[in-house]
Amino acid sequence: MAQVLYDFTAEPGNNELTVKEGETVTITNQNIGGGWIEAQNSRGEVGLVPEDYIEVRECGDDFSPALSVGNVASPDLSFFDAYAPTSAPAQNQASNGNDPWSVWNTDPSGGSNNNWASNPEGTQTGKNAPDPWGSHGHPQAYQGPAEDDEWDDDWDDMKSTGGYVESESGDSGAMQRGGAHATSMKISLNKFPGFSKSGPELYLLCKQFAKGKDKLPIYTGEVGPVWSYPESQLDCIVHFHTNTVNHRYKHFDWLYERLLDKFGSAIPIPSLPDKQVTGRFEEEFIKMRMERLQGWMTRMCRHPVVSSSEVFQLFLTYKDEKDWKMGKRKAEKDETVGVMIFSTIEPEAPDLDLIEVEQKCDQFSRFTKAMDDGVKEILTVGHEHWKRCTGPLPKEYQRIGKAFQNLSTVFTSSGYQGESTLTDALTAAGKTYEDIAQMVAEQPKKDLHFLMETNNEYKGLLGCFPDTIGVHKAAIDKVKEADKLVATSKIAPQDKVTMGKRASTMSYALQAEMNHFHSNRIYDYNRVMQLYLEEQVKFYETIAAKLRQAHSQFTTM
Amino acid sequence: MAQVLYDFTAEPGNNELTVKEGETVTITNQNIGGGWIEAQNSRGEVGLVPEDYIEVRECGDDFSPALSVGNVASPDLSFFDAYAPTSAPAQNQASNGNDPWSVWNTDPSGGSNNNWASNPEGTQTGKNAPDPWGSHGHPQAYQGPAEDDEWDDDWDDMKSTGGYVESESGDSGAMQRGGAHATSMKISLNKFPGFSKSGPELYLLCKQFAKGKDKLPIYTGEVGPVWSYPESQLDCIVHFHTNTVNHRYKHFDWLYERLLDKFGSAIPIPSLPDKQVTGRFEEEFIKMRMERLQGWMTRMCRHPVVSSSEVFQLFLTYKDEKDWKMGKRKAEKDETVGVMIFSTIEPEAPDLDLIEVEQKCDQFSRFTKAMDDGVKEILTVGHEHWKRCTGPLPKEYQRIGKAFQNLSTVFTSSGYQGESTLTDALTAAGKTYEDIAQMVAEQPKKDLHFLMETNNEYKGLLGCFPDTIGVHKAAIDKVKEADKLVATSKIAPQDKVTMGKRASTMSYALQAEMNHFHSNRIYDYNRVMQLYLEEQVKFYETIAAKLRQAHSQFTTM
Repeated sequence: MAQVLYDFTAEPGNNELTVKEGETVTITNQNIGGGWIEAQNSRGEVGLVPEDYIEVRECGDDFSPALSVGNVASPDLSFFDAYAPTSAPAQNQASNGNDPWSVWNTDPSGGSNNNWASNPEGTQTGKNAPDPWGSHGHPQAYQGPAEDDEWDDDWDDMKSTGGYVESESGDSGAMQRGGAHATSMKISLNKFPGFSKSGPELYLLCKQFAKGKDKLPIYTGEVGPVWSYPESQLDCIVHFHTNTVNHRYKHFDWLYERLLDKFGSAIPIPSLPDKQVTGRFEEEFIKMRMERLQGWMTRMCRHPVVSSSEVFQLFLTYKDEKDWKMGKRKAEKDETVGVMIFSTIEPEAPDLDLIEVEQKCDQFSRFTKAMDDGVKEILTVGHEHWKRCTGPLPKEYQRIGKAFQNLSTVFTSSGYQGESTLTDALTAAGKTYEDIAQMVAEQPKKDLHFLMETNNEYKGLLGCFPDTIGVHKAAIDKVKEADKLVATSKIAPQDKVTMGKRASTMSYALQAEMNHFHSNRIYDYNRVMQLYLEEQVKFYETIAAKLRQAHSQFTTM
Repeated sequence: MAQVLYDFTAEPGNNELTVKEGETVTITNQNIGGGWIEAQNSRGEVGLVPEDYIEVRECGDDFSPALSVGNVASPDLSFFDAYAPTSAPAQNQASNGNDPWSVWNTDPSGGSNNNWASNPEGTQTGKNAPDPWGSHGHPQAYQGPAEDDEWDDDWDDMKSTGGYVESESGDSGAMQRGGAHATSMKISLNKFPGFSKSGPELYLLCKQFAKGKDKLPIYTGEVGPVWSYPESQLDCIVHFHTNTVNHRYKHFDWLYERLLDKFGSAIPIPSLPDKQVTGRFEEEFIKMRMERLQGWMTRMCRHPVVSSSEVFQLFLTYKDEKDWKMGKRKAEKDETVGVMIFSTIEPEAPDLDLIEVEQKCDQFSRFTKAMDDGVKEILTVGHEHWKRCTGPLPKEYQRIGKAFQNLSTVFTSSGYQGESTLTDALTAAGKTYEDIAQMVAEQPKKDLHFLMETNNEYKGLLGCFPDTIGVHKAAIDKVKEADKLVATSKIAPQDKVTMGKRASTMSYALQAEMNHFHSNRIYDYNRVMQLYLEEQVKFYETIAAKLRQAHSQFTTM
């Protein structure tokens, strides 16, 4: 027995079953695959229903996340209102319909997600594949039917807690989700109190910083300014369970919003993987989103500033509802957000002059832009390679294999003595090419997948830099105006000195963040290339070994 | 200095030079490639001319064939009126213009070459690529300008020696060349004296066989009836020289006609490779024709009946013009041609009854038809694979290689310390994929080429079987009529017995030939599959080794 969560109207001729929200149906076959389930309604009619439209009362699979942090098992943060679709699953499959990796397309159309003002991406040649990131889609935040969340009943009050309105407004507003997830964090200057009027001078000209805040020291390491790294790096494994539809994804979303709010001016906070589910092949999509959620958590854990923050620690370690609520309220009252994060930063180094600050900023801007292009090129090329490896290439090897086997069958019919060695060998060679066909088709999931995922993650991260760097550029511009402001008595001469100092602090923060980025990047790319090449070597060696075996069966004696 | 052999009109804008037959030009650059040469005319104008339009007075390259037979070096049979083009080289390259292997297409349009009446080839899916075999082209026999042939002055009299008219008539007539070369030997029943009226009964009812002829014994081996094999197998290596334009190809052609005439009813005589040359990429075409001419000679040498024949021995061993002329005239007076070849066949086995004869014939017919389909399937699949391996696939690997190298360049610009290990490794990985691109593009010439050539040769051979088997079927039908002929007093009762015996002899000949075919086939396919798989193994192992090397440069320490 299962309960229908949403209305679903059967498409004629597709063996589907129309169901209504709240209706109870009997699951007659749960192993249909492709995101479908066979169910029988109370009138005895049987047909297919999207499995995410039905709440199956059963445990076992592993779809909802929970966290294990170090040795501390947190309460089960299992979620998946992702199961609540906001539009009906696609009824007909586009040519890329079975290709969850089509999300890797680099979206050359640019559009609202393109923060690289200096590059309209005219050189990109990606294809417009279906984009489960929803960058061109409908709003996605919290559109599922409202459901009870027994231990988080203040959730729906979030709109009234201030600052988060945008996060629920979907398509419009500065906190535009969807595409923002994929390529940019889209810091809304309006989000920060007073920021829209004054930009970074909120920090640059702030008379008094809040007291008692945790300070963020910046040290000078071998590579230049670096964040203070914790002695041991945090590890966080996200577990996934199938329990039932619930709202735990919202906690991740809440965390993301908090981190963006608090650190976004200094640290690129990559978007969460999208929680939207549409289409028949959701299992693949869900698996990928799970991987990406894990990747997101891992990246946050690896960040010295983010992982040490109170809000992040709360998320990882709260024990019960009371813990959570208290922490949540406290975090939402935090005023050291937006550009004010810089007020907590304490570089242990002499002030930089504005020219140095500007040079550094420009350098990072150029680098992140160039890397964004490079990453997108790999994604484009990789996506095409993926399509070839899973499409025409294995088909061709299969045809070669069949042709050998067909010839073997013909030879078997010759009636000639002493034929069997050749025909056996030819059949084996044909089967080998069929094996190779399968290997070719399956290989991308073993190697290209991770190369693509890593680059996709970096695409997301790099998409945050224009906003982060934008804050710095605005600050530099403001400092450049200081003389005029002094001359027109809008600020005091001492304020100008303070602004310079604070721009220097911002620059140290940016440098520390860039050095953190570089260090991670070098590790990540070494690791993913190792993995990729290792799997490629295995792949080619396996093929060679199979062919060597096939070769050994032929004889010209 | 060089002499222009044929008129050539320059195409505007292509940097070509218009030249006239007989004009003398100076070669200014012989290394242009693609079948072109740079020349200067007497007015000082410089431009490109097709190199086969010019007689360069220079030796060195290896284009004209001569024979080395065993230890006996025959006189230089170097030829190549193939150099005399009958149409101007193609000025613009079609997409397959640089693909001499496009000849492997299996010509699914069928048409005049399709002897398999029972199969309209509706299942074939080959492409219509340019076909240097000329199966759809113009007639090709001896269209070059008439030239002196100082030691073979009776050549042009060939038309009057009887029986060869068709061989020079080109497009029309039973000895249709071109497509016939590729897929069928097209025995003309009209070719054999009296044959058109009486079919195989010329042999079946012949009162008296010519005396003193070499007899062709058939023994019973382990596999059934077999030809008598010579103690040592003949070897013949065809050497190719560039001397000058001459007519020696005609000697091969003469030999082919003689063999077809004499043995065609009992033994499939595959056509010679076409001698036509058109298009810019003739070097590739010439090289392939050379290979094929060698393949043809090798196959003839391997045939116990053909290689022992007087005419073949003459061809291989004549010492001078006198030898040749004598042998040639003798061979052309041979009356044991067409179905009369069976009169020389002496099976050392009891007569077969007609049912057995018919069963064997039907079995061979089915087998050769089925193998023809199988071979064509391999050619079709192989051709597509060739195109992929030389086209889109290496381009993709190159793009992957470039993408890695571009990312490496970006990383180099980071200004971050300790970057160089990653960037060096990433550059090396990128170059490795560029190497792989080149390997992929060059691989088909190392393995697929031979697989294709062998199958192409078998396609030609199999194309001869419908004619050979047709003679046998006609004989069987005639024997079936024997009772009626006796009843109507058209033949004597004793003639009926003779016909049955002779049909049995024909069947033994066919069985011996099939057993020869099977034995060669098993050797050839074992050998070509060994070669193919060996090269494939090397290919994949080399790639794996290169990637392993690239892998070793990355480090996550």
